[in-house]
Amino acid sequence: MLTKNHIEYKQFDKNILDKLSKIVGKENIISDIEGVYAYSFDCAHIPFSKEYPQVVVFPQNPLQVSEILKIANKYKIPIIPRCAGSNHAGGCAPVIGGIILHFSKMNKIFEINNQNLTCKVQPGVVVADLQKEANKIGLFFPPDPSNLAVSTIGGGISLSSGGPRAFKYGTFKDYILDLEVVLADGSIIHTGAQTAKNVTGYNLTQLITGSEGTLAIVTEATLKLIPAPEKTNVILAYFNSIKDAVDAVSSIINNHLVPSVIDLLDKKTIQTIEDFYPTGLLTDMEALLLIEVDGDVSSLKHQEEKIINLCRNMGCKNVKSASNELEKEQIWTARRSAFGACARLAPNVITEDVVVPREKISELADGIIAISKKYNIITMVMGHIGDGNIHPNFALDLRNKTQKANFEKVKTELFRLAVNLGGTLSGEHGIGCQKANYLPLAIDKTTLEIMSKIKKIFDPNYILNPKKML
Amino acid sequence: MLTKNHIEYKQFDKNILDKLSKIVGKENIISDIEGVYAYSFDCAHIPFSKEYPQVVVFPQNPLQVSEILKIANKYKIPIIPRCAGSNHAGGCAPVIGGIILHFSKMNKIFEINNQNLTCKVQPGVVVADLQKEANKIGLFFPPDPSNLAVSTIGGGISLSSGGPRAFKYGTFKDYILDLEVVLADGSIIHTGAQTAKNVTGYNLTQLITGSEGTLAIVTEATLKLIPAPEKTNVILAYFNSIKDAVDAVSSIINNHLVPSVIDLLDKKTIQTIEDFYPTGLLTDMEALLLIEVDGDVSSLKHQEEKIINLCRNMGCKNVKSASNELEKEQIWTARRSAFGACARLAPNVITEDVVVPREKISELADGIIAISKKYNIITMVMGHIGDGNIHPNFALDLRNKTQKANFEKVKTELFRLAVNLGGTLSGEHGIGCQKANYLPLAIDKTTLEIMSKIKKIFDPNYILNPKKML
Repeated sequence: MLTKNHIEYKQFDKNILDKLSKIVGKENIISDIEGVYAYSFDCAHIPFSKEYPQVVVFPQNPLQVSEILKIANKYKIPIIPRCAGSNHAGGCAPVIGGIILHFSKMNKIFEINNQNLTCKVQPGVVVADLQKEANKIGLFFPPDPSNLAVSTIGGGISLSSGGPRAFKYGTFKDYILDLEVVLADGSIIHTGAQTAKNVTGYNLTQLITGSEGTLAIVTEATLKLIPAPEKTNVILAYFNSIKDAVDAVSSIINNHLVPSVIDLLDKKTIQTIEDFYPTGLLTDMEALLLIEVDGDVSSLKHQEEKIINLCRNMGCKNVKSASNELEKEQIWTARRSAFGACARLAPNVITEDVVVPREKISELADGIIAISKKYNIITMVMGHIGDGNIHPNFALDLRNKTQKANFEKVKTELFRLAVNLGGTLSGEHGIGCQKANYLPLAIDKTTLEIMSKIKKIFDPNYILNPKKML
Repeated sequence: MLTKNHIEYKQFDKNILDKLSKIVGKENIISDIEGVYAYSFDCAHIPFSKEYPQVVVFPQNPLQVSEILKIANKYKIPIIPRCAGSNHAGGCAPVIGGIILHFSKMNKIFEINNQNLTCKVQPGVVVADLQKEANKIGLFFPPDPSNLAVSTIGGGISLSSGGPRAFKYGTFKDYILDLEVVLADGSIIHTGAQTAKNVTGYNLTQLITGSEGTLAIVTEATLKLIPAPEKTNVILAYFNSIKDAVDAVSSIINNHLVPSVIDLLDKKTIQTIEDFYPTGLLTDMEALLLIEVDGDVSSLKHQEEKIINLCRNMGCKNVKSASNELEKEQIWTARRSAFGACARLAPNVITEDVVVPREKISELADGIIAISKKYNIITMVMGHIGDGNIHPNFALDLRNKTQKANFEKVKTELFRLAVNLGGTLSGEHGIGCQKANYLPLAIDKTTLEIMSKIKKIFDPNYILNPKKML
């Protein structure tokens, strides 16, 4: 049996548990200590929480969410919305205990509308499931976080998640037309409209998107879909140095080609992935660009040829495109397994997320490598280089006090570097509780004060995902 | 000499004029009654104002804007930001007098960055000028309000303006990465970052975009650019009824073609344009679709063929694509002259802007025609039908009391119709003072209260563009 050794567990008054139970039904509540333990952390994997959550509830509709929030607001109980828990910034960690509001039972796709080019979905829908359903009628929901096989629409909205395809297609926020949200006091409102364009009142839709559940709880979303590209293909281009790879990316962008993906993997990442899931990646090369092109068949060939030529001109040592669907699928599976593969290197793998203007990507990559060397932390550099967005994976053992202390220094220097290069703290993972302390590096006092005041409007009792972001 | 007959002119204390004069220089101030008269209305053309503006100031940099706002905030003087004044919702009308903050002298393009795919511009830059400059290096700023030859980036940001190309490319809000804004108290802040992706703190960039100068004054914007399409062409497809045209649009969308533009013009619009600027439009047809395709040369031909076939299948009576650049240019000039052409029909032409889910466009068009007939107001139906966005042009004489009263009824029924069809009050023109009273039709009380509280955070003394939107 779990004890209260490292974090505290304060059970609720039975009265509150009974009220919650009445709302969602006994079968939709977990309140025993063994049960709630699993929800005391998320994929960010560092135990931020000082308390366990007291209860996990699984609502089935917005009215239940509304009733739960009324209770939480009355008794000032923290509410932590959660779906897959696959975020990297501690957004689902119940830092000061409270109610985990779990959306796995609100996972319906209500509609995919081929005429409006929209869909209406609940927050618990898995991203890959929506993509599959849309694709059945030739439509496309582009955002593709690496964990899309488990991560959900609710998480994507909370963090404005992106993924490799953000280079061409943007992130979640570019696809949200309307949100149904429950406010802290239990009111249910819509933030936008079911229309392609809308400039009627302030843009609460975008204010709430990316706010990590700190302003309101999303219970339904109307998302924009686009026609699916006829075909895609993947090019693998290897280089003798990260700098050469970066120069090739600059050349692709300067020549105004728009691949759907331009991702970078450094040598350590290539080796780690190939070791975990062998697909024949060349493990002796310093850098690999994974480039995806999409479009109609004729345009695809045209793009491939141009990109391959540009890569060769920029010192590419080996370049090939996938020759069939299976090969393409294998490359993507390998790429998406990067985080899992890295997890074998050390007890902890921490994925970071920093973003700079595209022209500064080379300085960012060099800086990350230098910082990691300085503090002797194993680092795999990878990311959406076409967007100026790097996700270094740091492998370490947080039980080792020196490593833990060094990693704090790595993080601070990493964030300072990104900001000094004109960039910011997060492109697509969010701030959560992991980066909250660093926010003043990127956002000045006046602006943070405005954000705090906005938070107070929406959530005067500070019950919505407390200790996150601000 | 102008008198105080219909609206009041309250001159400021000389002390305030002197302070403003010291900030921007005497040559950058207009304060005589003849001078300020021209700024007492905008393109919406209905005299909303009960007072003239007391002064028009032309700042040249953000620090001057900051100093002006400090004075306005101290003395509680309304600030009305203005560029071309070409909006249709009365956003620049100085309803209760105040200071017109005119941005024609802050019109610099600081940078067009071919590597970051961004530009940095001041609010007074004319949209067409930015497009031309970007195009010189093969880049593209897609938003194209019909008045883009005069309308400015500042106006576009205030209203999240769109235009015909919004069907494929979205509106202003889809291209804004960062804003430098001056707050009511004179503080200067940045809302976003110079990066392609960013989810660091609340999205103040999108909160301020489309807020019509009621939250903060934009003094600089970092905008996203995309590679320019290799080539464009225009198709004109005529139909015997609006319904047939709408069906053709549905067929194009269902077949997942993505033209850059799908605009509709009804018979009265075709006739009025052809009369004003003859290019050989067929004036005996009930409806015309103006479709623009873009892309590389091979894809263009492919798209054109498919679209022409789909139109023919849906009862198109006459279809042709422009055969050369001149013809294409003429078609666009004709299309963009629609508002000017309509202005010849009656002393007043009022352009409205309503938007519905795409699948409801036929009902919206029928409804508009029925409402106009009922109240005997000449109406030209046109708009971005691919987006579910119609801009009816109403031609009338507002001095005629019956027509004026009838038009109020037309507006109310029009907005009710749009909302009842699941749509909303504005897709790309904004709310201004013209639609402010109708906002509760589209947005519920709780949501409006949140918006009012947000307004109060940014502008506790209600000096920023008062009487607009909320």
